[in-house]
Amino acid sequence: MTHLNETDKAYLLNSIRDIEDFPKPGIIFKDITTLLGDEKAFNFLLDHLSTRYENQEIDYIAGIESRGFIFGAALAARLRKRFVPIRKPGKLPYTTISEKYSLEYGVDEVAIHIDAFSSLGTHKPKVLLIDDLIATGGTATAAVKLINKAGAHCIEACFIINLTFLQGDLDIKKTTPVYSVLEV
Amino acid sequence: MTHLNETDKAYLLNSIRDIEDFPKPGIIFKDITTLLGDEKAFNFLLDHLSTRYENQEIDYIAGIESRGFIFGAALAARLRKRFVPIRKPGKLPYTTISEKYSLEYGVDEVAIHIDAFSSLGTHKPKVLLIDDLIATGGTATAAVKLINKAGAHCIEACFIINLTFLQGDLDIKKTTPVYSVLEV
Repeated sequence: MTHLNETDKAYLLNSIRDIEDFPKPGIIFKDITTLLGDEKAFNFLLDHLSTRYENQEIDYIAGIESRGFIFGAALAARLRKRFVPIRKPGKLPYTTISEKYSLEYGVDEVAIHIDAFSSLGTHKPKVLLIDDLIATGGTATAAVKLINKAGAHCIEACFIINLTFLQGDLDIKKTTPVYSVLEV
Repeated sequence: MTHLNETDKAYLLNSIRDIEDFPKPGIIFKDITTLLGDEKAFNFLLDHLSTRYENQEIDYIAGIESRGFIFGAALAARLRKRFVPIRKPGKLPYTTISEKYSLEYGVDEVAIHIDAFSSLGTHKPKVLLIDDLIATGGTATAAVKLINKAGAHCIEACFIINLTFLQGDLDIKKTTPVYSVLEV
């Protein structure tokens, strides 16, 4: 079960609530709190991700602040892996490296501790990146770059929901496999 | 194993990094990213929490933004429970209820979806609250109130680290049991 079938996708999608005009008019926000609050749906998703990744070589699971923390840490707990937070600037207490990315109006930035991926002997640390949703992909693309800049190898970027009409995963796909549980 | 012995506490504490003068001069910040990045320590902590809570009646695990998301979601994944995020105002997309609390200078607020704890038949939903650290306790005290205000029952507030000299858990203890894995 490395991908879900259409019935299972419909089941999970049905547990996610659409909120109109959030955070601004015209946007339909995918509210994943209803998925998290549904014991069966949340654990079905985690079971699926565990099955997909349990036999892959992964040293770290990285999650993007802050909904990516929820799914990333949950999967790390299931797979007994390390967890690395990727945060907005100024939040991490130790020395960080960061990566800027463009927004519709302006620039934003993601940061990671410089020693987030400590050496694990002879191989480059292998990192699975997780976030809840990929829209235009600015944050996720920067996060993949940041993982590689920090001396690790991002083996895959995993999103619970991909708003495919925005094609936010195009840049990531040039260097890194992308897996989206649900495509909308 | 509902509490750790002194050796195990020292082991976990040793995986947490002290950062001086963060976020402002004079404060020694407890950096839990080194614990999360240590496969053995992180999973030892999760094993301990799982053992402590696996036989307790818990319907939801609530975590406070954003480091509480990491520990809360990880434990929810281990125990196959629901997860509820408690967030800063303006972040949750659906209708929220909120609780204000005082800071050293000013006021802050935590929010939760009004339907976060949906009815589970005849009993009031039982909620375990998790955060990484309790200092002066403003956020955590407000979060406990908020859980009860949302129609649920906070059965315990759990912190990975308690800065006991600040006595931040005094107000919570009037209504709710507090468990701190590590006391500093």
